[in-house]
This record gives sequence, structure tokens and C-alpha cells, in this order.
Amino acid sequence: MPERMLSEAEGYRYLAGCGIPVPSHRLVERASDARTAAESIGYPVVMKVSSPQIVHKSDVGGVVTGIENPDDVERAYEIILKNSAANVPGAEISGIIVEQQMPPGLEVLVGGRTDPAFGKVITFGLGGRLVELLRDVSIRLLPVTDEEIAGMIREIEGYRLIRGYRGEPPKDEQALVDIIRRMAEAFIEDPRLKEFDLNPVILYESGARVVDARLIVEEMIGVETAVQLRMEAPPEIFYPSSIAVVGASANPNKVGYSVFRNLLSFPGRLYPVNPTRRELFGREVYPSVTAIPDGVDWVVVAVPARLVPGIMEACGEKGVRLAVIVTAGFREIGGEGGRLEEKVVEIARRHGIRIIGPNCLGIMMPHQDINATFDPVTPKKGSIAFISQSGALITTIVDWSLPEDLGFSAVISVGNQADLGFEHYLKLAEQDPDTRSITLYIEEIKNGRSFMKIVEQVAEKKPVVAVKSGSSTKGREAASSHTGSLAGSYEVYMAAFKRAGVIPVHGLRDAFHLAELLASEGYPAGRRAIAITSAGGFAVLSSDYADMYGIDLVELPDDVLEELNAFLPPYWSRANPMDLLGDAGADRFAAVFDVLIRHQDFWDIAFVVTVPTTLADPTHLANEIVRFSHHTHKVVVGCMLGGDSVKSGHRVLRTGQIPNFEELEDAFKAIGSILSVRGGGGGVRPGSPR
Amino acid sequence: MPERMLSEAEGYRYLAGCGIPVPSHRLVERASDARTAAESIGYPVVMKVSSPQIVHKSDVGGVVTGIENPDDVERAYEIILKNSAANVPGAEISGIIVEQQMPPGLEVLVGGRTDPAFGKVITFGLGGRLVELLRDVSIRLLPVTDEEIAGMIREIEGYRLIRGYRGEPPKDEQALVDIIRRMAEAFIEDPRLKEFDLNPVILYESGARVVDARLIVEEMIGVETAVQLRMEAPPEIFYPSSIAVVGASANPNKVGYSVFRNLLSFPGRLYPVNPTRRELFGREVYPSVTAIPDGVDWVVVAVPARLVPGIMEACGEKGVRLAVIVTAGFREIGGEGGRLEEKVVEIARRHGIRIIGPNCLGIMMPHQDINATFDPVTPKKGSIAFISQSGALITTIVDWSLPEDLGFSAVISVGNQADLGFEHYLKLAEQDPDTRSITLYIEEIKNGRSFMKIVEQVAEKKPVVAVKSGSSTKGREAASSHTGSLAGSYEVYMAAFKRAGVIPVHGLRDAFHLAELLASEGYPAGRRAIAITSAGGFAVLSSDYADMYGIDLVELPDDVLEELNAFLPPYWSRANPMDLLGDAGADRFAAVFDVLIRHQDFWDIAFVVTVPTTLADPTHLANEIVRFSHHTHKVVVGCMLGGDSVKSGHRVLRTGQIPNFEELEDAFKAIGSILSVRGGGGGVRPGSPR
Repeated sequence: MPERMLSEAEGYRYLAGCGIPVPSHRLVERASDARTAAESIGYPVVMKVSSPQIVHKSDVGGVVTGIENPDDVERAYEIILKNSAANVPGAEISGIIVEQQMPPGLEVLVGGRTDPAFGKVITFGLGGRLVELLRDVSIRLLPVTDEEIAGMIREIEGYRLIRGYRGEPPKDEQALVDIIRRMAEAFIEDPRLKEFDLNPVILYESGARVVDARLIVEEMIGVETAVQLRMEAPPEIFYPSSIAVVGASANPNKVGYSVFRNLLSFPGRLYPVNPTRRELFGREVYPSVTAIPDGVDWVVVAVPARLVPGIMEACGEKGVRLAVIVTAGFREIGGEGGRLEEKVVEIARRHGIRIIGPNCLGIMMPHQDINATFDPVTPKKGSIAFISQSGALITTIVDWSLPEDLGFSAVISVGNQADLGFEHYLKLAEQDPDTRSITLYIEEIKNGRSFMKIVEQVAEKKPVVAVKSGSSTKGREAASSHTGSLAGSYEVYMAAFKRAGVIPVHGLRDAFHLAELLASEGYPAGRRAIAITSAGGFAVLSSDYADMYGIDLVELPDDVLEELNAFLPPYWSRANPMDLLGDAGADRFAAVFDVLIRHQDFWDIAFVVTVPTTLADPTHLANEIVRFSHHTHKVVVGCMLGGDSVKSGHRVLRTGQIPNFEELEDAFKAIGSILSVRGGGGGVRPGSPR
Repeated sequence: MPERMLSEAEGYRYLAGCGIPVPSHRLVERASDARTAAESIGYPVVMKVSSPQIVHKSDVGGVVTGIENPDDVERAYEIILKNSAANVPGAEISGIIVEQQMPPGLEVLVGGRTDPAFGKVITFGLGGRLVELLRDVSIRLLPVTDEEIAGMIREIEGYRLIRGYRGEPPKDEQALVDIIRRMAEAFIEDPRLKEFDLNPVILYESGARVVDARLIVEEMIGVETAVQLRMEAPPEIFYPSSIAVVGASANPNKVGYSVFRNLLSFPGRLYPVNPTRRELFGREVYPSVTAIPDGVDWVVVAVPARLVPGIMEACGEKGVRLAVIVTAGFREIGGEGGRLEEKVVEIARRHGIRIIGPNCLGIMMPHQDINATFDPVTPKKGSIAFISQSGALITTIVDWSLPEDLGFSAVISVGNQADLGFEHYLKLAEQDPDTRSITLYIEEIKNGRSFMKIVEQVAEKKPVVAVKSGSSTKGREAASSHTGSLAGSYEVYMAAFKRAGVIPVHGLRDAFHLAELLASEGYPAGRRAIAITSAGGFAVLSSDYADMYGIDLVELPDDVLEELNAFLPPYWSRANPMDLLGDAGADRFAAVFDVLIRHQDFWDIAFVVTVPTTLADPTHLANEIVRFSHHTHKVVVGCMLGGDSVKSGHRVLRTGQIPNFEELEDAFKAIGSILSVRGGGGGVRPGSPR
């Protein structure tokens, strides 16, 4: 669809129509009219050429500022025409704009663009040259509430300039909120408007004015990024009582061998299907799905792509509810593969079969003893649901999880998402009683809006952690001062995650440690933290890390200090971090925990940082940490540092479902990443899953 | 010593004396003189009150700008006097400055302050309100070369404004270099000058002018932070053939028990000293050091503080070379403790005994089978020297190192550093043949200059990694626009580390993984990297992490691509990261390694990222990685991801001395942290220790 940029006069008209303040201005076609216009606007004025061929007016001498009297108006008129004609020969001059010259003020920008995954977003930042220099821009997905607008204004570093910098009076924040709100409303309601850039908006102590506007519209009525509603999947389809494996094989080099072998532990009915065999691992092999005597809930499809449509027809006939198609060779190879995938989906829709994949590793539901994948390793039962857009990541993480003693409630490889996708698996995890937190590995989301709607609901009940790859494609280097390009797609993902309450993480290990922490502790109610240790060095490092990751180490209230002083040795730190000194045994920690259990009102998170010492038995100490955690409604984070000497303590914590971090920094980083999304004071949502 | 701020006229005089350009100006005491001054300077001029009592001239109406003619000069003169008298009653007016009004330009700032640990530093950043907003300041310790000055100008984000922003002509960078150099020279040479803030310095396309200067001088000649030269310690004292333990005990609750038991594995002569016993662990106990029949090189002192002076006298008599005083109760408790420490040092100096500690855990030299500490755990032999200002950190790290299979060449607890300190231990590590990299845990350095001098020499030969705690005390919140406060002490440490080539790290685990990487691979020669993997998801994440940590994933040259295309399957990524596809076995990796061994000119670092797969045997794959590394002079980083399935591969890498990272992000982060200090192109220093 053809796009065009509105002329300056059109842009001003558009904004004025939205109730957004612009300078007084007139478009004139004669010098004498310019003079009349200037008189009625009032001096000083600015004059600018208006021509569709001239985008950078200043560069061609098409702008004159600081015009103070009628003679100068006429002179400027002539100069602008002459310069324009000389520099852009053949430009159509639609007239000259005479405009009120606005006094200087704080320049900010408000922009909007249409993201391919998430639709319309607005951005806000400092204006003029500051925007590129600072890269200090906040982003929100539309629609936005006034509260979110206030948040995006306050979030930028440059907010200090608005609030009143070094004794200057504050700027009119409400006028800015009004402009953003009105522009956001117009942007939602007007499907033609694709992108805009109000830069600068000049902010005063009272009021604000947009003095330059770039608006890009589509000439035809645009098709709003539709929320593609894919049918919901009934949860019971993920709990099968019978599974058939089509392509089950005795050849260890075949996927059908690995899948079938993994499923041997499935306690329900299991049927190998293969027309070329009679028996496999001592079980009767059926020549086709339809030949199976009983009902079949799931079929795992591990045959070449060209055979899949036929298999799906058979599944339809048999009344199969879910097909796990691990086979590759569909949309991901393009061309014929795409058409084949469409055909498979069409057959599935016709028969009411839902599809996992194709082109995926499969699905594991450890609590049901289901491993419907060709991963050679089966994970332990646990409380994390892992939904991944990469099969290799699953293989790697599952392998890593075994020595780490990390368990899963579900592991799902989404593949091409021809039918079921992230949204469905999130809903599965939401209602699954064994799942307490969710980890996503996302490369790209097709329909951001629908994803967001669902993940927001889910994250309200069960914490969601996401690793989003592809941050490096953001192409920062190429970014211009135009908001659109600064708000690169990765940033839109981050804004969407933040709004939906999803916690973004860079590293995989960090993601799973965080998921484990959230599974056991839920969201903290605020950012007020205490750190308890017996080692001065780690007390200092705790302060550093708290500062680094935005965690408030609160002051200890007087009554608490008094109680502690009554039994702690005189040299204890008497501050937070609480250094209980190197000779502290488990009993000293326990006595401090007792005080903190009695006084739960002043803190939200406790970090218990212990070191290997002959004076504190790790098992005893860990049991005291468990007791501490179970007697409070707060988040208690174990940091039993060390190696083999404290392994017995780690085991006690694990059994008591207390998270433990072996690197102190990771504990603070994890809590910080939660707080950055869910953080801070009374405004957090409820919902520790515990 | 009394400090005072120079008046504006004095400040201009000082700067002009250094050859630094300031605006033409006169200090006048009569309206008519002001008029004459303005005529000779040329209009427009600025006029400002000059009074020691009026610091914020604008606030009291003491400044008038844009004065265009003689009448306005006289009017301004009267207004300034009137305003000053009205707003600051009783202020002594030393006159009124008439000053050339400089045209607008780019405002930057140049500042200087005296850091308590490292002495004089200079800072550079954008000026005016931008300085506080951006917190975008570079810092260097004095003296600085022109090259370093150019570096500090180019390092700030705002450098784009100097280089020429969005098509604007560039500013006069040389004029800026000249100002910084001259100011740096004056700052070094003038002991009176304690702090200064040239803000703003206005930069033009040609030339620059300092238009506001705040200089703080000490009235008396200041004592330059002297480089306290502590005697060097001869290396041989760290390799004893006999050790006595004073306070050796049979009581497991005593430090003297733990120390003696740890030393039982020492292959040299070992003597327990305790007047109350005859026998300990089957060895003869001596009543005093002097009663030992043979020579004694080391004495470990584990008796109460008050007894230490007597012990030291006996050590002197015996000709002991080094005393490891683990006893606490010295300077760290203040008062009497400080005096006791001085006494001990005095005795040691008199007898030529060197001291480790007091108030320390002791020292471990695993290759000599020495564990002269009361740490219950003894580390493995390895190639990392760990020097720590916290004993608890040592206990924790050593305990953690055992299951991690990480070894040490030396572990030293510095304690109070009454005699030997960081500098001496660095020199020990430098010449110790078993040490290949060094890790420091630093809380505070007493004499930054002497530390820097030594660590710079050492880091040239053996990589030095440092965890510096105390970053949170930097008090950013309280920072004003004055350079001094922006250049908080932690930032000075970071600037000092950078100059000395020390690699700063936040987390302890990160520090040791990095030390291990450096011990085996040395410094990379540049930042050109390649990543080789068989998993698409990890290829994407590799790109992200490379981008995040400043590592260049280079383009593959055409001839290399051609060679690879000849044998790789058609769908391989044909780009860097090189995705060899999921069915890649060890042989496919090996064939790619062969190409990269033949073409070593286009890359400096290779990340080999593997995942658990039945198609690639981890032992075979790891052996190929070892071969790859040993056949190049480049840095090869193993990232064999996974758990138990790939442990055999991890073991092969460890035996082959190839670093392996179990979290992909950590590998890129580690290399990035090296490059941020040692990085980039041809400018790096030589010196892989391999």
C-alpha cells in the first residue's frame, strides 16, 4: 500500500484535530499575505517553504527564523523562494508557512511505529540531538493508560530535566501526558496512520507545543494487525491414556526408534505402528493407526514428510485427538514444504485433531511418564514447564538439568507451530497442577498481541521467565534519530514482556535458576531486602550487588537492632548487611532468624549468605534456613557458598524447596530481574504460587 | 591545610599562564572603565560581579549577558552593583569583570581531583547540563600521554558531537587535546592545585575557550601523595625448607591445631612449638623457636596477640626469614592493637624478618605442599595465584574449587599487610614458575600508585583478574555536576585497572573461570571471533552474546567459504556463526577445524559450541577441539554444553588445558571482559604466557 508523509501544514492540521497544541501558523502564497499573517500571529515569526519535494528545508535555505518586523517578512519571503528554486530546481512550492516562533523550552519527542509482531507502539524520549546521543527512549504497546504514560515519562534518564533540573521550576508534565494520550488514541483509532514523529515537542513550565511533526499515512485503509484467534485447546488433550508411534522402528539410527524407546515407560497403552514389522520390544506392531483395536489419544508421527497427510487421514478416522509430528521437511524448507504443511493442517482441522510441530523434538510430560521425543535423555519430575523454539536447546538443557537436580513438569518443542503454539502451551502450563513456573525460549513470535494477552493472564498466576534471542539484529548502528528506528524490535519485545509481567533473562542457566526460585518462592512483595552473613567480605559484596541490581537493603529498625544487640557479640555490624562475625554457628543464625520472623513488616526478601566453616554445621544451618523460610511469608534466598563441604546443606535446602545460589552475584541478579518487571512497593500483583 | 577557590579573574590568569585559551576580559572598578574595557574587547560583552562572597553570580542578578553598546555597559554596571548589594548584603565587591561574549559552541568539561588511593586524576565529559544527565565521563590517572588523552575524548558516548554530528562539521579536537594536556601538566607540577573544574569549555570548529573555571588550591605547599616504597621481598623466601608452628596444639578448637595438621604434608622439616607439650602427631614439640636444633625459614604464629612480640624476638634470634602471623587483635581493632602491630613490625625490621598478616588466614603454596593456614580444606595444584583481602572468601573459593577441579599455584590471605602486601605477592606470582594467571580480591588499596606500577609490569607477563568490592559506596545519587564527585573512587579503581591492564570482574565464579581461561590461552591478539556450532538456536544466541560483549564475529573470507562449501552439507549457514547442522559429527567439526587451522589470518578467537547428540561422541569431539587449539596460535574456547552426557568431553578438554564454559553467555562475557581491557586490533600488548 502506498505510504506518504503529510506536509507540514497537513501535519499541523492533523494534530490540531486531535486537540494537540501546535504553533499559530498560516500557509500563504504571496508576500503581502505573509505580512498580514505575521501581523495577526504576532512577532517574532518563523517562515518555511512548503513543498513536497523539499524535505530538509533548512538545508536548502528554506527556513528563516527570528523575523521581527514586516519588512523582514517580505525579505524572507523572497529569499526563501529564491533559495528553494536555486537549490531544488523544479520543486513545486505549495506556499510558505508563516509560524509563531516559540520561545525555547525543553525539547522532547513523541513517536509511534507499527511493529511487525506486536502492532502499534509509542515511544517517548528527549528531543533534538539528545535523542540519538542518549538512546534514552521508553516504549509502550498500545493502548496505554494514563498511568502507563506517566510511567514512560518517568522511566527515562532525562526525566530529571522535566521534574526540574538543579533548582529550575518543573515542566508541565500534564501537558505532555495529554499530548501522548491524544496521539496514542489517534494512532489506535486511525488505521491510516502508520508512523509518526513529533520532534521536538517543546515543554514549558506551563503548556507544550509540537513544533515539528512527521506523520506517515497509508493512502488506503490499512488492515490492522488482526489478533489471529486460534482455537483454544482443551487441557485434557495433554493427558492421554493411549499413544501410538507411527514409524516406530528397531533401527537405532531412526527417530522412530528413539521415540518409541522413550515411550516404553509410559504407563498407559502404547502402540507401535509400522507396516513392515510384526513385533518391536516384545510388543505387537500394527500396520496402521486404524488397525489398532482400542481408542488412540495421541499419535507421534515419525515418518517422512510426504507420508504425513495419509497418516493424518487415518488418525482422523481413528478419532485421534493430538498428533505430535516430529518429522521435518515442512514450512521451514519453503516451497513444497509449506504447501504440504497447509495440507496437513487442513486435514487436522477437518477431523478436529490438534498438532504439536511439525519439525519439532516432541513433548515430555514427566509426571505422566511421557517422553514423546527423540531426545536420548529423560528429565526428572519437577515444577518447571519449559517451552522452546529450539530442539537443540531442549536436548542441552535436559542433559544439564540431571546433575543440577532440576526437574520439569513439561518440556515442549514448539516446532513450526502449524496449529498449537506458545499460547496453547502457556494455557496448558497455567492449568497444569504440577507446574509452578514457566520458562520460554523464543526466537520470534508470530502474533504478538494474542501471545501477550495470554501470557499476561498466565504470569498473573505462575511466573514466566523468557530468553528471547535475536537481540543483535536490532541494528543499533543504523539507528537514526527517528523514534521508529530507535524502538528496534528487540526493545518492543522487552516492552511487551514488561507489560505482560514476563521476566526477561539473557543466559539459559540464569533462566532456569530464576524459574526454580520463582517456583519455590513466588514473587516478592517489594524490593526491601536484608542480607545475613558471617563473612565481612561477602557483606561488602552483598551491598555492591544489591546496588547493582536495584535491590534496597533497608535500614534495620531500632527495636530490631535492640533485640539483636541483646544477644549478638559486641562487634557485629549493627547494620544491613548483617555481619554476624566469623565465629557464628547455626544457633546464632537461628536466633537472628527468630527476630526476623517476629519482625516481618520491614522486609520482603532475605539473602542468607553462609561460608564453609568448622563452626557452623551445614546441615544444621540449612535446616535453620528452611525453618526461617517456612515461618515467614517472605522470599528467603539461600546462598550457601562453597563446594563439597556444604553439599549436605544444599541437599537440605533442595528438599525444603529453598532456592540456593552458589554464586552470590547470581542471587542478587535473579531477584533484581524479578523486581525490574514485578518490582517495587505496594504496586505488585499478588500471587506467590505457594 | 586551608583550601580556597580562586576568584574568576585569578582562575583566568592561572589558565592563561598555562597557555589555555580564555575569553578576553578585564576586572574594572568604575563604570567608565567598564565602558573603555568593552570598547577594547569588542561587543557583545558579558559583565559579572567579582566577589569572594558571591559564588552563584547568576542567582543574585550579578551577571548581564548580550551587552551590545556603551550605554548598556553603564546600565549593566549599576544593575549588577545594586543587585549584589541587595541580595548579598555586606559582600566585598572586588570589581566587575567585563568579558568577551563567546558565541555558542559545543560545551564540554575538563576536571581534576585528587583520589585518596591513586592521587591525581583528570576527567572529561560533555559540559553544561549534559554532564549530569549522561554520567558520561572518562577518567585517567596522571600523567597522561597525548594518545591517552585522545582515548579519553573518544571513549565517551558524546564523542559523536565532537566528531561532527549528523552532518555538522567536526569540532577542533586538537584544541581540546591541548587544553587537557596543559591542564594535566599543570595539575602534576603544581602541588597547590587540588581540584579543578573547567565547565564549560566551549569547542568550535576551530579553537576552544574555557568560559568558566573553578580551581581549588591549598594555601600551603601540599604533600604529594608519596609513593611509599616498601622493601622488595626476595622471591626465595617464599620457598622454605623448614617451617615451625608456634602455638601448635592438640586441641581441635585451636587455630594452632588446624595450621599444624594442614602442614603435616609439607615435605620439608616441620617443627611444632609449644611450651606445654612434648609430643604432637608423633613429632617432638619444642618449647620455643630458639630450642629447635636446625635452621628455621618460616614461622607460623598462632598464639594470642600479646605474645607475638616475644615470639618475633625469638624468631629474630633464630634467623627466621618469614613470619606468617595468623593471630588477630592488631591494627584492625584500633588503639592498643595498632601499637602492638607497630611494635611487631619494628622487631621484624630490626631482624630482617618479613611478615605475612597479621590477622590473616595464612598462605598456601600447593606445588610445595604447603598449607600454612587454618582452612580445613587444601586446594589442588594448579596455575592460578589467588591473593585475597578476605579470609572467608579464600575458605569459600577453595572449597568450591575442589568439585570444580580448579587448581592453585598460591593462595594468600593478605590480612593487615603490616609488611608484605599486594605488591609483594604480585611479584611472587610474577616469578613463580607454576603461576600462569593471578586473581585478586581487593577491598581497598592503600598506595594506589605503587600498586599500579607493579601490577602493570606483572600483567604484562601474566594475566591479572580483579574483583574490587565497594562499588556501592560510590554514592552516585549525591553526585553533582562537578567532575570530582562524578569520578567516584570506584571509577578511579576501574580507570587504574584499565591502565595497568588488570581485568575487572564482578562475580567470584566469573573471576576464576576467567583466570583459568587466561592461564591456558593467554590474551587474544584481537577481537575477531568465529563461532562454530551444530545447533541453530545456539548460533543465534552466539550472535547476541557477541554483540552484547563487544566481540566481532568476522565475515568468512571467500576462499574459506569455498573450501567449506566443498564438503559441508548444502544447508549449512554459510556464515559466522557457522551452523554445521544438527547431524554434524566429530568428523565434520574436525574438517572445519582443519580449514581454520590453514586460515589463521582472519580470526583471533574461536568459540566451539557443541550440544549433546548421539551423532557426535563427546570424547572424540573434545579431542578434535584440543587438536584444533594445539595447532593454532589463537584462543580456542570450548563451550561443550550439556550435563553428564558430555562429561567425558569436559575431562578431555581439561586434560588438554582447553577452557570450557558450561553456560554459553559466560564464554562471551569472559572474552569480552578481556577485550575491554586488553582488546582490539593491533594495539594489544604481546604476551600469551603459552
